[in-house]
Amino acid sequence: MKEKLAPWITFRSDIKVLDCTVRDGGLINDHLFDDAFVKGVYQTCTAAGLDYMEVGYKGSKGLFARDAFGDWKFSDEDDIRRIVGDNDSPLKLSAMADAEKTDYKVDILPKKDSVLDVIRVATYVHQLPTAVDMIKDAHDKGYETACNIMAISTVSEVEIDQCLQTLTETPVDTVVVVDSYGALYHEQIRYLVDKYLKAMNEVGKEVGIHAHNNQQLAFANTIEALITGANRLDSTMMGLGRGAGNCPTELLIGFLRNPKFHIRPIYDFLTEHVNPLRDSLDWGALVPYNISGQLNEHPRTAIGVLKTDDRDDYVKYYDSLVSAI
Amino acid sequence: MKEKLAPWITFRSDIKVLDCTVRDGGLINDHLFDDAFVKGVYQTCTAAGLDYMEVGYKGSKGLFARDAFGDWKFSDEDDIRRIVGDNDSPLKLSAMADAEKTDYKVDILPKKDSVLDVIRVATYVHQLPTAVDMIKDAHDKGYETACNIMAISTVSEVEIDQCLQTLTETPVDTVVVVDSYGALYHEQIRYLVDKYLKAMNEVGKEVGIHAHNNQQLAFANTIEALITGANRLDSTMMGLGRGAGNCPTELLIGFLRNPKFHIRPIYDFLTEHVNPLRDSLDWGALVPYNISGQLNEHPRTAIGVLKTDDRDDYVKYYDSLVSAI
Repeated sequence: MKEKLAPWITFRSDIKVLDCTVRDGGLINDHLFDDAFVKGVYQTCTAAGLDYMEVGYKGSKGLFARDAFGDWKFSDEDDIRRIVGDNDSPLKLSAMADAEKTDYKVDILPKKDSVLDVIRVATYVHQLPTAVDMIKDAHDKGYETACNIMAISTVSEVEIDQCLQTLTETPVDTVVVVDSYGALYHEQIRYLVDKYLKAMNEVGKEVGIHAHNNQQLAFANTIEALITGANRLDSTMMGLGRGAGNCPTELLIGFLRNPKFHIRPIYDFLTEHVNPLRDSLDWGALVPYNISGQLNEHPRTAIGVLKTDDRDDYVKYYDSLVSAI
Repeated sequence: MKEKLAPWITFRSDIKVLDCTVRDGGLINDHLFDDAFVKGVYQTCTAAGLDYMEVGYKGSKGLFARDAFGDWKFSDEDDIRRIVGDNDSPLKLSAMADAEKTDYKVDILPKKDSVLDVIRVATYVHQLPTAVDMIKDAHDKGYETACNIMAISTVSEVEIDQCLQTLTETPVDTVVVVDSYGALYHEQIRYLVDKYLKAMNEVGKEVGIHAHNNQQLAFANTIEALITGANRLDSTMMGLGRGAGNCPTELLIGFLRNPKFHIRPIYDFLTEHVNPLRDSLDWGALVPYNISGQLNEHPRTAIGVLKTDDRDDYVKYYDSLVSAI
């Protein structure tokens, strides 16, 4: 077949996959994964040929009580090394630093003292000045950096444009389109990725996608983003993640044609470690998440209702959103 | 916003939705829905402003023992009228007739004697001559007709072209792209829908889409098809259907912007009638369906493994498919 007709049977070698199972998944269990799970993710990412693994957050110990959360809320150097040693593998390790929730000057070590390779700064638009300082700090310390601008489905176009312009003037390596609410459809993803690419490619930066599955579109929107030109793709094993979860790594790797990727180790990990979590944790594109996504709302109210006896009263939840002026 | 930039906030009035909950869902319970369920689907389709409801199959009583299946395997006139009376509503009623599994000359009544409006002929490519005769039969009896060419992801391009050419010469009103295996990605859907449109629009026929959710792409591929120009969209409540199920009606109606559609009655029906079925029935994009879809295989082996103690041994199932030469 001609490539013009069937580009989906080729592959772009510059596409890189970041598995954030432990980081995003940690949001539904207070980051309390046992070491066997985290080592399993690490070994699976390595065996599957993924490019990046995000181990957790760099949460501020001033804001978050150390003993109220698992290690991956803080991702201290010793804890990471307990899992990966010196990470003698091509897999790059990432940690996420939330704007205004990270003591970045202290808690992010100089790269030479850390096994981490990448710092991803997560920010709402109104926190951008803080994020910019965090990006510079991490870059100056020797890290590859990324900026995840969250909840982009609620941001006005002029603010997105200003945000992108600001980021072009930073040393950030990648800017990620983040559909925090799982609200966006194909054409919106295409429009945003195209906008980010126009701003970033000419200054030598990459564009990424982080999709949520509220409307069963996380995988589809990730495909849409990569077709449009995004080269950095976020995913999690079995879609594990807050609320409806994420783009499933196993679906993404099943789609990508680069022979460096191997899907079989992922299926093994799903059986051994992720599927058993369903007995105690709740994630996936349940109807309340469909509703919050359709209405472009933060999933917190859906997460809340799913913990009550009304979890399957969809009209009641729908009414609570549409009647709340 | 300009339409050029944001066509997703407009709507095309020629888009019509067909709910096939009872028909496709019947494949996982031998069509044994009680009347309250089927009446509920009917009332919900009417209240939600959907265009078509498919009540079931017109299965051959010579091939299928009448007492081994529920009524909706056969969709006899009296059974349909027990639910809908004379169908005093704008909702059109459809039945599906499988090529080589329907005594169509006998069991499909003249339109004047039936409350059905549409006969949809489902066919594999090699059965097309039979399907063509069935289409002519139904058309001559006074019905709107459609042709669902199944398992299109396994059909060579030259056969698809011949098939479409043949159908242009029939009185069929709609030809439906059917991804029976849930194997197709965006660009493939776009390519096929575009091909169908080129063949069908110039002879005044419509193109439809029937997607399966093996890779969590049923809703996404339905959006892709409608963006490309397909005007007839199949869906089911909560995606109920064989294997991984279908495009969920509630997601599709949440996306479509035509004010004739109403989503609230659908959420009510999901709570009352569909969600409770999860206690006894198994459907959705489970990992074995991900695997069969990725490998472009019929879901029957996945359906089989999910009934065994190995249902969560994904590597074993994966190996069974990739090692079977």
